Amino acid sequence: MASESGKLWGGRFVGAVDPIMEKFNASITYDRKLWEVDVQGSKAYSRGLEKAGLLTKAEMDQILHGLDKVAEEWAQGTFKLNPNDEDIHTANERRLKELIGETAGKLHTGRSRNDQVVTDLRLWMRQTCSTLSGLLWELIRTMVDRAEAECDVLFPGYTHLQRAQPIRWSHWILSGAIAGNPLGVDRELLRAELSFGAITLNSMDATSERDFVAEFLFWASLCMTHLSRMAEDLILYGTKEFSFVQLSDAYSTGSSLMPQKKNPDSLELIRSKAGRVFGRCAGLLMTLKGLPSTYNKDLQEDKEAVFEVSDTMSAVLQVATGVISTLQIHRENMGQALSPDMLATDLAYYLVRKGMPFRQAHEASGKAVFMAETKGVALNQLSLQELQTISPLFLSDVNHVWDYGHSVEQYGALGGTARSSVDWQIRQVRALLRAHQA
Amino acid sequence: MASESGKLWGGRFVGAVDPIMEKFNASITYDRKLWEVDVQGSKAYSRGLEKAGLLTKAEMDQILHGLDKVAEEWAQGTFKLNPNDEDIHTANERRLKELIGETAGKLHTGRSRNDQVVTDLRLWMRQTCSTLSGLLWELIRTMVDRAEAECDVLFPGYTHLQRAQPIRWSHWILSGAIAGNPLGVDRELLRAELSFGAITLNSMDATSERDFVAEFLFWASLCMTHLSRMAEDLILYGTKEFSFVQLSDAYSTGSSLMPQKKNPDSLELIRSKAGRVFGRCAGLLMTLKGLPSTYNKDLQEDKEAVFEVSDTMSAVLQVATGVISTLQIHRENMGQALSPDMLATDLAYYLVRKGMPFRQAHEASGKAVFMAETKGVALNQLSLQELQTISPLFLSDVNHVWDYGHSVEQYGALGGTARSSVDWQIRQVRALLRAHQA
Amino acid sequence: MASESGKLWGGRFVGAVDPIMEKFNASITYDRKLWEVDVQGSKAYSRGLEKAGLLTKAEMDQILHGLDKVAEEWAQGTFKLNPNDEDIHTANERRLKELIGETAGKLHTGRSRNDQVVTDLRLWMRQTCSTLSGLLWELIRTMVDRAEAECDVLFPGYTHLQRAQPIRWSHWILSGAIAGNPLGVDRELLRAELSFGAITLNSMDATSERDFVAEFLFWASLCMTHLSRMAEDLILYGTKEFSFVQLSDAYSTGSSLMPQKKNPDSLELIRSKAGRVFGRCAGLLMTLKGLPSTYNKDLQEDKEAVFEVSDTMSAVLQVATGVISTLQIHRENMGQALSPDMLATDLAYYLVRKGMPFRQAHEASGKAVFMAETKGVALNQLSLQELQTISPLFLSDVNHVWDYGHSVEQYGALGGTARSSVDWQIRQVRALLRAHQA
Amino acid sequence: MASESGKLWGGRFVGAVDPIMEKFNASITYDRKLWEVDVQGSKAYSRGLEKAGLLTKAEMDQILHGLDKVAEEWAQGTFKLNPNDEDIHTANERRLKELIGETAGKLHTGRSRNDQVVTDLRLWMRQTCSTLSGLLWELIRTMVDRAEAECDVLFPGYTHLQRAQPIRWSHWILSGAIAGNPLGVDRELLRAELSFGAITLNSMDATSERDFVAEFLFWASLCMTHLSRMAEDLILYGTKEFSFVQLSDAYSTGSSLMPQKKNPDSLELIRSKAGRVFGRCAGLLMTLKGLPSTYNKDLQEDKEAVFEVSDTMSAVLQVATGVISTLQIHRENMGQALSPDMLATDLAYYLVRKGMPFRQAHEASGKAVFMAETKGVALNQLSLQELQTISPLFLSDVNHVWDYGHSVEQYGALGGTARSSVDWQIRQVRALLRAHQA
Repeated sequence: MASESGKLWGGRFVGAVDPIMEKFNASITYDRKLWEVDVQGSKAYSRGLEKAGLLTKAEMDQILHGLDKVAEEWAQGTFKLNPNDEDIHTANERRLKELIGETAGKLHTGRSRNDQVVTDLRLWMRQTCSTLSGLLWELIRTMVDRAEAECDVLFPGYTHLQRAQPIRWSHWILSGAIAGNPLGVDRELLRAELSFGAITLNSMDATSERDFVAEFLFWASLCMTHLSRMAEDLILYGTKEFSFVQLSDAYSTGSSLMPQKKNPDSLELIRSKAGRVFGRCAGLLMTLKGLPSTYNKDLQEDKEAVFEVSDTMSAVLQVATGVISTLQIHRENMGQALSPDMLATDLAYYLVRKGMPFRQAHEASGKAVFMAETKGVALNQLSLQELQTISPLFLSDVNHVWDYGHSVEQYGALGGTARSSVDWQIRQVRALLRAHQA
Repeated sequence: MASESGKLWGGRFVGAVDPIMEKFNASITYDRKLWEVDVQGSKAYSRGLEKAGLLTKAEMDQILHGLDKVAEEWAQGTFKLNPNDEDIHTANERRLKELIGETAGKLHTGRSRNDQVVTDLRLWMRQTCSTLSGLLWELIRTMVDRAEAECDVLFPGYTHLQRAQPIRWSHWILSGAIAGNPLGVDRELLRAELSFGAITLNSMDATSERDFVAEFLFWASLCMTHLSRMAEDLILYGTKEFSFVQLSDAYSTGSSLMPQKKNPDSLELIRSKAGRVFGRCAGLLMTLKGLPSTYNKDLQEDKEAVFEVSDTMSAVLQVATGVISTLQIHRENMGQALSPDMLATDLAYYLVRKGMPFRQAHEASGKAVFMAETKGVALNQLSLQELQTISPLFLSDVNHVWDYGHSVEQYGALGGTARSSVDWQIRQVRALLRAHQA
Repeated sequence: MASESGKLWGGRFVGAVDPIMEKFNASITYDRKLWEVDVQGSKAYSRGLEKAGLLTKAEMDQILHGLDKVAEEWAQGTFKLNPNDEDIHTANERRLKELIGETAGKLHTGRSRNDQVVTDLRLWMRQTCSTLSGLLWELIRTMVDRAEAECDVLFPGYTHLQRAQPIRWSHWILSGAIAGNPLGVDRELLRAELSFGAITLNSMDATSERDFVAEFLFWASLCMTHLSRMAEDLILYGTKEFSFVQLSDAYSTGSSLMPQKKNPDSLELIRSKAGRVFGRCAGLLMTLKGLPSTYNKDLQEDKEAVFEVSDTMSAVLQVATGVISTLQIHRENMGQALSPDMLATDLAYYLVRKGMPFRQAHEASGKAVFMAETKGVALNQLSLQELQTISPLFLSDVNHVWDYGHSVEQYGALGGTARSSVDWQIRQVRALLRAHQA
Repeated sequence: MASESGKLWGGRFVGAVDPIMEKFNASITYDRKLWEVDVQGSKAYSRGLEKAGLLTKAEMDQILHGLDKVAEEWAQGTFKLNPNDEDIHTANERRLKELIGETAGKLHTGRSRNDQVVTDLRLWMRQTCSTLSGLLWELIRTMVDRAEAECDVLFPGYTHLQRAQPIRWSHWILSGAIAGNPLGVDRELLRAELSFGAITLNSMDATSERDFVAEFLFWASLCMTHLSRMAEDLILYGTKEFSFVQLSDAYSTGSSLMPQKKNPDSLELIRSKAGRVFGRCAGLLMTLKGLPSTYNKDLQEDKEAVFEVSDTMSAVLQVATGVISTLQIHRENMGQALSPDMLATDLAYYLVRKGMPFRQAHEASGKAVFMAETKGVALNQLSLQELQTISPLFLSDVNHVWDYGHSVEQYGALGGTARSSVDWQIRQVRALLRAHQA
C-alpha cells in the first residue's frame, strides 16, 4: 500500500504509480539547490507556530535542533536522498522525522506545500539576486576603470555600422557601463520585492502568482540583450578588418584545423546566451498563459528556469568582466581608422556658424563629399577654390575643421564625447558604485 | 535628380530608389500617430536653439508659429502627406518649410533624426502610459466595488481545478485586483523613467537603447498573462457545468449555427491577446539581440510594436472593466457547489487542536474521506462511531466542523478569506486607489 | 605551456585560460550523450580516409579497433574523462591516442571539429526521432483502441466551452489522434532529411545551418501545443463540475493539505511542458538571428536544446499514453450532460427540411430557445401550439428531433460523429498504424 | 432589439452591445482581404448544396450569379461595408441577400461560421504561398546567376568572423541560395497540405486545428532567420573596414546629419524583420497553448498574423532580390584580404602528404604561424631553414603552398569551393529552378 512509503497523501491511494510518471512529477533532481533556504524557512515557520501556541517551547527547540542537523548533513554532503523523496521539502521533512520523531509532523500545521515552495524560491532568489548584483557591479567597475585609463584614445563612432564621427574609446565603454546601470536599479526593485517587509495581500494570489520569477527572467533577458550587443561590437572590433582590439588568450580558443586562428569564443557564447535566457522567459510566460487561478502543477516549471538562468548569468557576468579587463586595444589602428569624411558634419557646422541654415549646410557638405569622391581625393584635400564653388562662405579658416581632437571636443554637452563630458560620465558611474557599496 | 524631391541626403545620391524599397523603408503609415509629440518636441528644441544663440528670437518665433500651424492642420484633418514624406518628422519639416520658408532649415541644427525619433517615442509613451494607467485603475476600482458588495457569497476555492476549500467570492475578485496592483507600481517606474527629469548619461546609449520599449512590452505581456488567467477562470465559471456566473449579453455573442448558445467571446479575446502582446515583446528582443551599438535601422521595429500593444491594452482593459461590472453571479449555484469533503482540512485541524501532529491528522482525515467514498456517503454523514475507528480523538463536537461559514471565518490571517481579512484587503486596495488619485 | 595539456591548438597559445571561461566553453557535461554516434561517425570517416589513400589498411584497422575499445569503455561505464576533455570529440580522440598511439592523429585529416559536431548531432537525432516516433505511434494506437471500444458513448461537444451538440466520445478521442497524425508525417520528413542519402550541397552552409534542429524543436513545440489542448480538455472533464472522466491514481497525486483531493498532476505537467519546449525553440531562433555565416560558437546552444526537448517529449508521450489507457469514463454523467437545447440546430434543420431557408430557420429555432428559457422549461417541453406561434411549419413529427442518438447519426459525412463516420476514422488511423509498422 | 440590425443570432439577444466590445470583436478591418476566397468558397459550397438536393438548380444559379455580383463590387471598389458587418462573411452574406433576396439565407445550410472562416483562410494561404514561392525562386535565380558570373572571384572565408581560408565569392552566394532551397521544398509540403485533395479526417479537429497557420509562420521565421544572417554578412562586407561590396543607392539611404554616409537600411530592415515574423509565430503558439478543443474565439488571432507575415515576406523577398541583383563587388579588396596565414591549413596538409599524422602536422603549422608572428613577417616569408627547424619534412616545394588559386582548387569534393564543385552546385540549383518551372 502506498502509505507505507510515507507519501504525504498516503491514507488514500490504492493504485500504484507509473514509474515514469513518478520521475516526471519529481523535482528533487533540481530543487535540492533549495536545501538551505528550505531549512531557513522551516526554522522561521516553527518559531511562528510556537508564538501561535501550536508548538510548545520544547517542541520548537527540538525542531530547530533537528533542522540544524539536516542542514549540517547537506553542508557536509552526507545527506542521503531516498527514492521516495520527490522534492526537497519531502526529503527534509522525512529526514527530520527520522532525527526527532513524531514532533516533526507538527511543523507543517497550516502550511501548504505550495506556500512552502514559493517561499523557498523567493528566499533563494533573494540570495541569487544579491550575488548577481555583485557580479554586475564588478563588471561595471572594470568598465569604468578602463574608461578612465584610456580616455585619450579616439576611434570611429559607427551608426548602421558605417563610420560616422570620431569618438573617444571611453565613450563607447561607458555606453555599455551605463546600459548596465538601469539593470542594477531594476535589481534593487526586485530585492525590495523580495525583502518580505510587506506581506502578500491575498492568499490565492500568493501561491499562484509568479511575477517575481517572470520579472527576474525578463531582467536577465534584457541584460543579456545588452551584453549580446556589446559582444557583437567587440567581435567586430576584433576582426582582422577592424583590428581595434585583441582578446586575451584566456578568453579565446584556437581552431582544430586552422592554426593561425584565434576565435572569440567567449564573446560568441555571451552573445548566444541571450537566446537561451530569453527562451526561458518565453517558456514561462507561455506556461502561465490562460492557467486557472491558484496553484496548478504547471507552476513547477518556474524553478528549473530560474536555476538555469541564474547559473548562466553568473558565468556570463564573470567572463564578460574577464574579457573587458584583459582586452588589448590597438591605439594606432583606431587612430588610422579616422578619416576626413567623418568630419563632414563638422564641415556643415562650419557653414552654420557662418549663418547658413542647417539643412542647406548639410546639403553643401554632401556636395563636398560627392566632389571629393568624384575626384578621388580625401575630403580635406579639396582646395579652398573647389569648396567655394559649393558655397562662398568657405574661407581659409576651414582648415581648422580637419582636426579630430578638436572635433571630439565640440561635444561637451552632458553625455557627449568631449573629455569633460566623458569625465563627468565616469564620475556619475563611480558615484553609483559608491552608493551601491554604502 | 533625387535632391529635387527634397530628400534629406539629396546632395549625394544619383541612383533611383526601388519603389518597393521606398515603401519598405517608410514608416509614415504608422508613425503619423506621433504628429503631436513631434511638434511638441520641435517646439522645445527650437527654444533650446534660441538659448544657445543658434536661432534669433525672431527666427524662433517664426518656427514656433509655423509648428502651431502644422499641429492645427493635423488636428483638423487637413494636413496633406506627399509621396516623399517617408516619416512623420520629414513630413512636418517639409510642411514647416512650405509655411515659413528657409528658416525651417535651422530647426534641425545639431539634432539627428535618431535623437528626434527616440524623443518623440518617449513623449508618446508618457501619454499612453498615463492613459493605460487610468484604464487599469478603473478596472481595479470596478473589482474592489464588486468585492465589497458581494462579500457574503461563498463558493469553492480551487487548486489544480479541483475543489479545495470554501472561499468568499470577494476573495477571488481581489486575487485579480491585487495582481493588477504591482503592475500599477511598475507603470509608475516607467513614468518616472519617462519624466525626463534626468538626462541620459551617454549619447551613444541614448539613441540605440530601447529598454523603455522592451519594459513597456513586458509590462503589457505580464499584465495580459494575469488577465488571461482571470478570463480563463470566468470562462470556466460561466460554463453550463460550473454555472457560477453569467456574462452580460453586451459581452457575449451568439452562434451562427446553434441558436441556444451564448459564447464568452469577450473573455476569449482577452485570453488570446496575451499571445499577441507577448509575441511583440519576443519579436523586439529578437530584433535587438546581437545588434551593433548605436542606431541601426532595425530599431524602427519598435514603433509598430508599441502602437499595436497600446491599442490592444486599451481595448482589453475597457472590455475587462465592462465584463466585470455587468457580470451576473448565481449565488445559489455557488453555494450548492460547496460539499463536506471540502472541509477535510478542517477535520484535520480539529484533530490538531486536540493535540495530534498535523501529518497524522492529515492522514486520519484522508482515511475518513476514503471511508466516506467507500460507503458512498458524504463526509459529514459518517457517524461518530465510524470516525472513532480512525481516531479516538473524535468527539461529538466534531459536528461544528460542518459549517461553511465557520470554516471560512477561520482564515482571519491577513490575506485570508475571513470577512475581516477580505475587508482589510478591500481597504488596502481602496487606499491604493486614493493614493493614485492624489 | 598549454600544448602539454594536449589541447588541439596547443602549438600557439602562451597565456593561461580563465577557469570560469574554460567551464563556460566546455560542452562535455552534456555532449557525452553523443559518445556512441561520435564513435560511429569516426569509424565511417576512417574508412573514407582509407579509400582516399590517406590511411593504409593497417592504420585503418588499428583505428577501427581502437574506436571499438573506446565504445566498449563508454558502454561499460569505465571511460574516464580527464579535466582537459572539453567535449566528447576531444575525449574520444585523446583516449584513442592513449590506446593506439600516434596513428590516432591521422583520423582527423581534413575533418574539422565543426563538421564532426554537426554530423554527430544529426546521427543522434536520427536515433532520437525514431524513438520518439515509436512513442507517438504508441499513443495514437492507445487512442484508437479506446475510440473503438467506447464508440457508443455520447456526450456534449463544446465550442467556446459552451455545450453545442451531442457527439460521440470516440469522436473527441479521434480528434486528438488525428492531430497527432500529421506530426508523424512531419517526422518522416525529418528522418528523410537525416538519412544522409543526399549530401549537403555547400560546405559553408553545411556547418552553420541548423534547420534540422530548428525544425525538430518546432515539431516538438507544435506537438506539445496539441497535447496541451488535449490535457486541458481532460483536466476540465475531470473536474467535479464536469465529472466525465477520472484519472487513474497512477497519474494523480494527492494534496499535502487537503486529503479529499486528487490532482491531475500528470495532465498539468503535460500542459506546462508546451511552454518549456517552445521556449527552447524561441531561444534557438533568437540565437541564430543575425549570426554571421559559417560556424560561430553561438551554435553550441543547439545541443542542450535538443537533448532537453528530446527527454521531455519522451516522458510526455509515455505519460500521455499511460493517462489515456487508464482513464475511466463516467458514461452516466456524460449522458446526463446532454440537454434538449443542444438540439436547437436539429430543430432548425427540421424547418430547413420543410423548405425554410437556413437563416430563417436558425432565427426561428433561436426564438424557440428564448421562449423555452422565458417559460423556464426545456426546449423539448414546448408544446406544438407554442412552436407553431413561431412557424406554422412545425408539425407533430417534430418529436423525432428530441432523440440524441438520432441527432448524432445525422452527421454521417466523412469526419462526422455518426457511427459509420467514426468507424471510418478508426479504419483510417489503423491503416496509418499498419503503414508505419510495415 | 438587436435582431433588427440583422445580426446572425438576432432572435435571442435582448441587451445592447458595448461599442468597444463590438470593435474588439470585429475582424472586418483586416479580414476584408479574404473577399475573393470567401466568394470562391461560397460558390463551391452552393454547388455542393445543389448536389445534396438542398438547393434547386434555379436557386443555385441565383446564388452563383449574386456572388459574382458581390465579387465584382469588391473588385471595382464599390462594395460598401455597413456598421453591422462584423466580418467579411457577414458582409458578403448581407450583400447577397440585398441582391437576391431570401434565397441567400439557404447558402449557409449546414455550414458553420467556423468552417467557413477556416476554409477561406486555407484558400487564401494557398494563393499567398504560391506568390511567395515565386518571389523566393526569383531571389534564388538572381543568386545563382551572380554565382555563375563571378565564379573567379576569391575572398576570405570566415568562421567566428576570423579569416579562415580562401574561398570563391560564388561559394558564399550559393551557401545562401542553398539555404533558401529547403524552404522551397517546405512550401511544396504546405501547398500539398492546402490542395484539399484530401479531406480532413475529423470535424472537431478541422475547425480548431491551426497547424497550417503555425507551420506557415514557422516557415517564414526560419526563412527570415536565414535572410537575417545573409543580411548580417552583407552589412559587414559593406563596412569601410571590409569594403568587399557596395550597396546600390536604390537600397541605401543617407544620414540626416552626416552627408558622407550611405546606410544599408535595406539590409538592416531585412535583418530586423526576423524578429517581427518570429514574434507572430511565438504569439500564435502562446495563444494556442492550453486552449480547449474545437473552436474558441482565441483562434481569431490567426488571421492578422498570417496577413502581416505574408506582407512582410513579400516585401523582404523582393527587396533582397533587388539588393543582390544590384550589389557591386570590389574584387581588388576581396583579393587583398587574402593573406598567407590563411594557408596555414594547407601548410599542415603539405606535411600530411609527406606522411605526418594530421594532429602533428597541425601543431607544426601552428608553430610556423607563431614563429612568423614573433618575427613580424608573413607566414610565406619564413625561410626554408626556419621551417626546417620545425620539421625536416619541409622541402623547397613548400613554395607551391603559397598560391591562393591552387589552395581553392584543392576543395574539389562536392560542396567544396573548387571551380568544378561550385559549377556543380550551380547546376544543382538550376535544376531545381527548372523543376519548379515545370
